[in-house]
Amino acid sequence: MANISILGLGAMGQALTARFLQQGHTVTIWNRTPGKAASLVAKGAREVKSAAGAIAASDVTVMCVLDYAASDSVIDEAASALSGRALVNLTNGTPAQARAAAGRVAGLGAAYLDGGIMATPPMIGGEHALILYSGSKATFDAHAGALEGLGAANYLGADAGLASLHDLALLSGMYGLFAGFFHASALIDSEGIRAASFLKLLSPWMTAMMGALPEYAEKIDSGRHGVNVVSNLGMQAASLDNILTASREQGVATDLLDPMLELFRKRAGAGFGDEDISGLFELIRRKSGQGR
Amino acid sequence: MANISILGLGAMGQALTARFLQQGHTVTIWNRTPGKAASLVAKGAREVKSAAGAIAASDVTVMCVLDYAASDSVIDEAASALSGRALVNLTNGTPAQARAAAGRVAGLGAAYLDGGIMATPPMIGGEHALILYSGSKATFDAHAGALEGLGAANYLGADAGLASLHDLALLSGMYGLFAGFFHASALIDSEGIRAASFLKLLSPWMTAMMGALPEYAEKIDSGRHGVNVVSNLGMQAASLDNILTASREQGVATDLLDPMLELFRKRAGAGFGDEDISGLFELIRRKSGQGR
Repeated sequence: MANISILGLGAMGQALTARFLQQGHTVTIWNRTPGKAASLVAKGAREVKSAAGAIAASDVTVMCVLDYAASDSVIDEAASALSGRALVNLTNGTPAQARAAAGRVAGLGAAYLDGGIMATPPMIGGEHALILYSGSKATFDAHAGALEGLGAANYLGADAGLASLHDLALLSGMYGLFAGFFHASALIDSEGIRAASFLKLLSPWMTAMMGALPEYAEKIDSGRHGVNVVSNLGMQAASLDNILTASREQGVATDLLDPMLELFRKRAGAGFGDEDISGLFELIRRKSGQGR
Repeated sequence: MANISILGLGAMGQALTARFLQQGHTVTIWNRTPGKAASLVAKGAREVKSAAGAIAASDVTVMCVLDYAASDSVIDEAASALSGRALVNLTNGTPAQARAAAGRVAGLGAAYLDGGIMATPPMIGGEHALILYSGSKATFDAHAGALEGLGAANYLGADAGLASLHDLALLSGMYGLFAGFFHASALIDSEGIRAASFLKLLSPWMTAMMGALPEYAEKIDSGRHGVNVVSNLGMQAASLDNILTASREQGVATDLLDPMLELFRKRAGAGFGDEDISGLFELIRRKSGQGR
């Protein structure tokens, strides 16, 4: 069992603390504003009055606060305590923010492991929770047992920005899935059919369509969108146009899918209508604008 | 074994014919422009020179042409042959077009079954092919054996527009999935990571996220988006804003997901920020604009 400190007692920080306590760890907690610790103290957590005090109390400190502005100010005020310690930052942010925090913490003589929590607070410790990590491999290895208690722990590499990058990418995939579902449900509802009933057809269909992704991934990686094309971009543009026209006829707003048709047309207009729709990737990924 | 006629020998019509022949049916074929029949005739199909001749030759006729304008003109020119026959129309279109065709064919004294093919031509007859049907139940029941040979056959109801409606809804779900995947892949590529490698993380994640759909469907059906909210729309708007900001930093165009953030903000601005994101449905489904 480990000595673990938690910085930040929002819904997620509380869930992390409760899970560590449940697993039998010794947990020290701190939150900037008081009043969040009582139920956790009742379960055995020890509350301290400063972030520096929390960091000093444990082998490893897990931080989960609102955003990187908040996390940066905690790091600043606890700077004196960080030397020789390990900080695991599960705060939501961007790759650039994670890298900046990693540099700041390294400058203070501490190990830095960034993380992205792919779960809601009630999911923590459950079988569907996934947490992505990147940064200090030594910190990940030293505390992998405790971290696995929170959810499946996936270490992505030494670059502290990788966890956030993958976190954002997974979420953007999820939002696409949800957008498609909301549009589909609106179409179905336009004829008075219940979404729950339609889902019996949609779920296996979406699972089957996920079977197309490995081939698209291969085309994206190779840049060869013209090989083994079954239903080309021009044909799919006509199909999507038909869907959006019918949607409007049915009283369904097409906001969520309009941009895809626009990109199909742009790509076809550039002479790639005979290629696969994976070519859309080339319009989304602006090589010249790389931020790093 | 049945006597079946096929109208239309595009890639899909040819796949349907080849599959029916493989299953041992007697198949009569017709296409408006010549030159598409040779390989099918070599496999045992009988080619005739008119749509009316094809319809007269068989117990049931399956039509699959470019669009409903083409299907309407075939119906018109073969009108005299249709009385007492059964027509299965697998042409792509909208619910309104399917219903108009059903009315036209009923007026000529024939049974009409509409269908939506959820498969590419190479998939016909394979385990992943799905075909949705709606319209004449008697026609579906009489020929279910032959139709099952093409792919899983799902009869949705007597309203001829239902197959097309579900077809369009399933495809719109698919396009949302693909949009999310393309955006996610562009984010990942911005750090030089291969889409094929990322897919090992994305596929189980997307499968897990599909687990959220039944609850969203329930909220859509009940209109109660404020119950059991874990991560509310306001929080998810902040999360999506973070994703899109980071995407731009990474040189990724946000076209495909911008409208979702706009709708999140619109819904939150209307006072529903504490509710679930399933509330987006209410912005997409314009009740007043119902087309039927």
